[in-house]
Amino acid sequence: MMSIITLTTDYGLKDHFVGSLKGKIISELPDARIIDISHDIDPFNTAEASYVIGASYLSFPKGTIHLIGVDIERNKENQHIAMQWNDHFFICADNGILSMLTQKIVPQKIVEINIHDRFPAEFSDLDIFIQVACHIAKGGLLNVIGKEIPTVKEVTELQAVVAADGNSLKGYVIYIDHFGNIVTNISKQQFLEVAKGRPYEIVMKPKSIKTILPNYSAIATSDKYPIKTYEGEKLAIFNEAGFLEIAIFRSNPSKVGSANSLLGLNYRDVITIKFS
Amino acid sequence: MMSIITLTTDYGLKDHFVGSLKGKIISELPDARIIDISHDIDPFNTAEASYVIGASYLSFPKGTIHLIGVDIERNKENQHIAMQWNDHFFICADNGILSMLTQKIVPQKIVEINIHDRFPAEFSDLDIFIQVACHIAKGGLLNVIGKEIPTVKEVTELQAVVAADGNSLKGYVIYIDHFGNIVTNISKQQFLEVAKGRPYEIVMKPKSIKTILPNYSAIATSDKYPIKTYEGEKLAIFNEAGFLEIAIFRSNPSKVGSANSLLGLNYRDVITIKFS
Amino acid sequence: MMSIITLTTDYGLKDHFVGSLKGKIISELPDARIIDISHDIDPFNTAEASYVIGASYLSFPKGTIHLIGVDIERNKENQHIAMQWNDHFFICADNGILSMLTQKIVPQKIVEINIHDRFPAEFSDLDIFIQVACHIAKGGLLNVIGKEIPTVKEVTELQAVVAADGNSLKGYVIYIDHFGNIVTNISKQQFLEVAKGRPYEIVMKPKSIKTILPNYSAIATSDKYPIKTYEGEKLAIFNEAGFLEIAIFRSNPSKVGSANSLLGLNYRDVITIKFS
Repeated sequence: MMSIITLTTDYGLKDHFVGSLKGKIISELPDARIIDISHDIDPFNTAEASYVIGASYLSFPKGTIHLIGVDIERNKENQHIAMQWNDHFFICADNGILSMLTQKIVPQKIVEINIHDRFPAEFSDLDIFIQVACHIAKGGLLNVIGKEIPTVKEVTELQAVVAADGNSLKGYVIYIDHFGNIVTNISKQQFLEVAKGRPYEIVMKPKSIKTILPNYSAIATSDKYPIKTYEGEKLAIFNEAGFLEIAIFRSNPSKVGSANSLLGLNYRDVITIKFS
Repeated sequence: MMSIITLTTDYGLKDHFVGSLKGKIISELPDARIIDISHDIDPFNTAEASYVIGASYLSFPKGTIHLIGVDIERNKENQHIAMQWNDHFFICADNGILSMLTQKIVPQKIVEINIHDRFPAEFSDLDIFIQVACHIAKGGLLNVIGKEIPTVKEVTELQAVVAADGNSLKGYVIYIDHFGNIVTNISKQQFLEVAKGRPYEIVMKPKSIKTILPNYSAIATSDKYPIKTYEGEKLAIFNEAGFLEIAIFRSNPSKVGSANSLLGLNYRDVITIKFS
Repeated sequence: MMSIITLTTDYGLKDHFVGSLKGKIISELPDARIIDISHDIDPFNTAEASYVIGASYLSFPKGTIHLIGVDIERNKENQHIAMQWNDHFFICADNGILSMLTQKIVPQKIVEINIHDRFPAEFSDLDIFIQVACHIAKGGLLNVIGKEIPTVKEVTELQAVVAADGNSLKGYVIYIDHFGNIVTNISKQQFLEVAKGRPYEIVMKPKSIKTILPNYSAIATSDKYPIKTYEGEKLAIFNEAGFLEIAIFRSNPSKVGSANSLLGLNYRDVITIKFS
């Protein structure tokens, strides 16, 4: 069976870096099926990489190898790791990228990659990742390329917090997408657990939203008006990745404006849900 | 034979959406050959999607499946359709995207997709498109996934208009490309039919052009000067898609400037050809 | 064996051009493995294309065909060529793009493509390149599609210059990458030849750097502080392509700033290394 290798990096598409990466993979593994997830991760932003990989891995078949090239230079703080988790493989630096996954399901195996000495000095960190990806793709075991470790580095900033009285849920903006829609770290599951069926209000500065829609088009509450009437209205849904998203209906960042621009919401801004 | 599936969307390349789409397709159809046409369609701009798909489909072999992910949320105004046309397949929302094609050649078959009830509620509109694409790729019939309908929704704004006296042809800017070149909805065929060999002038505000060149380099009318001399001059050609295009010779939007910036022409601006 | 064809163009990713190019290649050669190197070369900037192809070709297996779509319109100054060099194939216009390669190793064969008359008039320059690429991919000889020529057009501006007294090396900024890092035309090899072990100083206006690091992380000279302390500091390394690069540690052009923005360095600016 053909191996699938996905790529998530902050290398951008202007330079030759992504092309070279693919060239090196197919030099090692001519049949590899390589799929780009994103190369426009905000530079060195491990939280963005974490959200993007968490939101997309499940679209791929079991056994897929996910190579994450964000903040990968190996140094005293950043070791290289490979993880088998939910029957997928992940190769990245141990900089917190995987903690969003491991908070949900216990990993099957994690190794700290220790094959760096086997290669010439001019081998880059990325070259090591390519070797590991090809090793796994050929059916090689993780123990052969690293020593087992019990956990990955945890990053707690990605979790929304329930107030002491249980009456509110405080999250943050963790991602702003192509349409300018705001993605928060409040998951549907956490929302349902805290809400217990109570009425609620999503509070952003300086606005609030009282209803979470099942999908974007549900904003058209009346059949009397054409759908176009609702363009530019703000709304909230749980997106496909399961997180609360604040959007502008049919937003076009350069014309109508986006949730990001119209509501003045930015990365790491607070979003609170109050229950009553 | 390997199935070819092309993708044209307004999802952008920053987010994981396109990667997830590809992952889902190869999960269903491991051998699918997936080719990106564009993921930078202006958000919800069905006219742009229409131009891009019309300009590119013919570069692909017969039997290719074109999945168009622009403005696809299914609602009372927008049904999902699949069309067999000129031996290619198209899957999109019935929002006018295909009318530029059907104005030229009668479709072989159009169906309104009606399989939504067969899938779980959390299936997105895009998931339905993926199911339909894989069904067609496996040789499945359109009638199995939809009920036949006679026509697609027509959008007339994409057609240039001949004046009552037959002495002018009025079109619009329908697309601005990567080089800032202006593409109009005046086709070579319509031009030839109306021109009947007469002299003409292309009138834009506030400039005009008196000659349509066979290709960009034809701007160098004399052998005395190097080609570089002509950089920055405005010109008109019929582009490979067969439409009148106003360009700046060797335009670099960030340096020389482009037709878009130098001539002050924007999307939906009027371009008239006057015959004398 | 599957043929590998790489693409390097200034077509951008918004338009359908790259998708159409791929569609035409797989129409001719269904099994072709097509890899994008870059489609965001600065329009008509042959020096950028030259750097990008020189920095990436070696990541691909021998026999790979590199199609370069930058400034390809055929005219009195620009002929189309195909070159076999270091067991790779290159197809482009003879506009200096390949001189950075041929300055290092003598080509195995160069031909001026002369098959244009065999195709219909509406065949574009790119269509000719596709025919040539598919011909080579099928094992065809270069002599069948062109007449042999001894050399490619030379562009000398890409070479750094040693001062008459041998005490300095004067180069230029030839590329600015996604991270805003500045790449110069001073190669490690030339540096070592001129330096002969002497102390040196890299002089840019208005700053200078006294040490070339082995890698980015080497900027952390002390174990006392976290790596984060060094963010935003300027540094110099020889990059993977072997050229001197001026960078900002962990630069994010839109936040920390980049070498490009913070040091005020732009394309074609002078960089001098003074030896003492």
